[in-house]
Amino acid sequence: MSVIPNTHVPISVQSSTSAFLGQPNKLSTAFRARNVWIPAKKSGICKCVATPSVEKTAYTTKVARNTNIGKLQAGYLFPEIARRKAAHLLKYPDAQVISLGIGDTTEPIPEVITSAMAKKAYALSTLEGYSGYGAEQGEKPLRAAICSAYYADLGIEQGDVFVSDGAKCDISRLQVVFGSNVTIAVQDPSYPAYVDSSVIMGQTGQYQKDVEKFSNIEYMRCTPENGFFPDLSTVSRTDIIFFCSPNNPTGAAASREQLTQLVQFAKKNGSIIVYDSAYAMYMSDDYPKSIFEIPGAKEVAIETASFSKYAGFTGVRLGWTVVPKELLFSDGFPVAKDFNRIVCTCFNGASNISQAGGLACLSLEGLEAMQEVIGFYKENTNIIMETFDSLGFKVYGGKNAPYVWVHFPGQSSWDVFSEILEKTHVVTTPGSGFGPGGEGFVRVSAFGHRDNVVEACRRFKQLYK
Amino acid sequence: MSVIPNTHVPISVQSSTSAFLGQPNKLSTAFRARNVWIPAKKSGICKCVATPSVEKTAYTTKVARNTNIGKLQAGYLFPEIARRKAAHLLKYPDAQVISLGIGDTTEPIPEVITSAMAKKAYALSTLEGYSGYGAEQGEKPLRAAICSAYYADLGIEQGDVFVSDGAKCDISRLQVVFGSNVTIAVQDPSYPAYVDSSVIMGQTGQYQKDVEKFSNIEYMRCTPENGFFPDLSTVSRTDIIFFCSPNNPTGAAASREQLTQLVQFAKKNGSIIVYDSAYAMYMSDDYPKSIFEIPGAKEVAIETASFSKYAGFTGVRLGWTVVPKELLFSDGFPVAKDFNRIVCTCFNGASNISQAGGLACLSLEGLEAMQEVIGFYKENTNIIMETFDSLGFKVYGGKNAPYVWVHFPGQSSWDVFSEILEKTHVVTTPGSGFGPGGEGFVRVSAFGHRDNVVEACRRFKQLYK
Repeated sequence: MSVIPNTHVPISVQSSTSAFLGQPNKLSTAFRARNVWIPAKKSGICKCVATPSVEKTAYTTKVARNTNIGKLQAGYLFPEIARRKAAHLLKYPDAQVISLGIGDTTEPIPEVITSAMAKKAYALSTLEGYSGYGAEQGEKPLRAAICSAYYADLGIEQGDVFVSDGAKCDISRLQVVFGSNVTIAVQDPSYPAYVDSSVIMGQTGQYQKDVEKFSNIEYMRCTPENGFFPDLSTVSRTDIIFFCSPNNPTGAAASREQLTQLVQFAKKNGSIIVYDSAYAMYMSDDYPKSIFEIPGAKEVAIETASFSKYAGFTGVRLGWTVVPKELLFSDGFPVAKDFNRIVCTCFNGASNISQAGGLACLSLEGLEAMQEVIGFYKENTNIIMETFDSLGFKVYGGKNAPYVWVHFPGQSSWDVFSEILEKTHVVTTPGSGFGPGGEGFVRVSAFGHRDNVVEACRRFKQLYK
Repeated sequence: MSVIPNTHVPISVQSSTSAFLGQPNKLSTAFRARNVWIPAKKSGICKCVATPSVEKTAYTTKVARNTNIGKLQAGYLFPEIARRKAAHLLKYPDAQVISLGIGDTTEPIPEVITSAMAKKAYALSTLEGYSGYGAEQGEKPLRAAICSAYYADLGIEQGDVFVSDGAKCDISRLQVVFGSNVTIAVQDPSYPAYVDSSVIMGQTGQYQKDVEKFSNIEYMRCTPENGFFPDLSTVSRTDIIFFCSPNNPTGAAASREQLTQLVQFAKKNGSIIVYDSAYAMYMSDDYPKSIFEIPGAKEVAIETASFSKYAGFTGVRLGWTVVPKELLFSDGFPVAKDFNRIVCTCFNGASNISQAGGLACLSLEGLEAMQEVIGFYKENTNIIMETFDSLGFKVYGGKNAPYVWVHFPGQSSWDVFSEILEKTHVVTTPGSGFGPGGEGFVRVSAFGHRDNVVEACRRFKQLYK
């Protein structure tokens, strides 16, 4: 998958905009009319620069490309899948393509939540309701509601909670806090943003084609053999440990005992765990929903979470990260203070409208509505699991996460992805996109309309009957 | 101003939330009830860790603090001003404090814009209107509308435009693209995010207390003597040149001739200009509103902009950055491709509700409504300028920007800031907060309700009569 990162960027302006651009066009021309190019006095240079030929030369600056970004092997996984889906649609314009690939929510957001956002939007047109810059860390009522809804009795305080525009964005901000001199460990397979952001920050060496890994990253193999929990006795010490539970893509959730082992391991090594709990509310098993349920975790862990998969906020953008004041760098400096500095300098807070939605999510009605949305996707998960199970596949995940991890022993993930797309017009995600440990697996997402999920499963049965 | 970065973070949960947290509290306890701490089997370790005493030890991880963040001298400027304002309110609980400090918009957002956002919010509750993840680069219609409204006839295409959650955020993402091995130049004084993000990325040396500058940054002095445009013949070559016009804080706008000089200077040196045009619509003079009006600029410049100061979107969060496909690193690799990779990996797009608002901003009615908002703040600017002018102060800026740059020769900016706050209860911004070149100046923002601006000016006249 050697992609030019933004092959999917160039788009025909006309196609999407001819309908409405006439008007702004007129006005914009009006209000920019006085700025048309007028040769400045003593501007021989400009005249010459202005000639089209010069505009066409392949002038290059003397700024060297960031070598760390050069280490990245391909486009970020999900845009790459979007690219392949688009290519498939070009090949089969009439195909009814069903996407169970990228974990993108499909069900409407409950009205108790959208009406709160609409109300906030309207209020912004009133003197009393208008608000400008909010606190970069988020609005106090929302920070407090997050504490109460997710961390009651866990000793997490409002000041430990940083509201954001999403977990993916916070992962990168955390990497900026850590800088280039830390080492990281990741579950293999895992959400690609951990590895990619580490490469970008210069924490890694080059990509090793033979093993399909970046040097200087500790890949913690998670397989059916070890119950998708790494054998920590074989894991080298790193500064940072990214750990996602319930895991994306395997769907495996770590038990209280396993997380206690993980916290002990981090404590022994003086490591910081970045715990991604974006799918915590999908858990059926009685496992911890927060790393802070494990005693001592506040001294070694950060937790990042999101409203995306609970309330359908993938497009609305709202998440949070908890950095306990108890978490200290080796010199005793609180990690939260540096994270706060990055949040204040590199970010300006989540949209106040999204935050109004987040607050509604955490009202009694909102929490119940989110549980219904989650319940719906969990039913989808069961349908997908039963389908592959009935076809004789080994199926993992699903129980505690909206992802089904299907095993195709001895096959290439991308080959299986391509065959499924070609023969059923269903988009999945190749397991190897999440790391070498995902080779031979395909992730099927439960985010979809019911009829699409049922239809996709019908096609799977046809393909594999 | 030696501040602990997050001194303003800790907040009393009760104060802001007792009113509404009762309910979610109940439910949350309900849906987390099964997660109360139960000693795991073979968990002697856990029991021991679980004892309060251990929770209280000053355990430190073995992760070293990022030395670059350690170089930062204080909290980010504006949170620091918020902190001083809060301290003043504690001292004078009954004072009618007026804030003309941080450039925070105060006027309601025109209804044509908020109703579009409310409509989008409601639509998210319908099957037809729901949307999940959008393109990380922004929605096509908005990207196209930005091209049409701001870059008509300038050869900027939809694919060159990246929609974001604000210019401040994009500045940091650009710094991640550039990495730690570039050198930067900034106007002195200038918006502090340029220098701070450079320090954070490791592009600079230590802070030099004697000159109040970071080593390895080129500070381009902008003073009344040089008309606030740097003498480029004395400026050393750097990889990146941050240039803001109309400038924050001085309010000075660069002429077509000056920008042509700047582009030629960058071209000669092979530098990349990061042009911040966040205040372009405030210009009265017939100066370029975009760097891309200068021939050849597409080969050396990036432009970042924002809806914040046009539509009152400081809290809604929406901006954009233009990275022309013609801009190439020294190896010929397009900068836009690396920026796209960072946007896809470290960001997930601006809120779809904010983007619906941005599209409304660029409709015929929206553009006219924004012009009205801008016109209102420009009237404020005139009131402030006339006031200081009548008091015999040398006043700069104002004409092309919502900021008035008042000269207090020989005085310390922070002393003047403190005296004004103490004696008039008006919050301004000390010029030295924008760099050593701002020493002896105070920035007065025109963002405020009319009666507050008038009252503030009345108090200024009392203080300086």
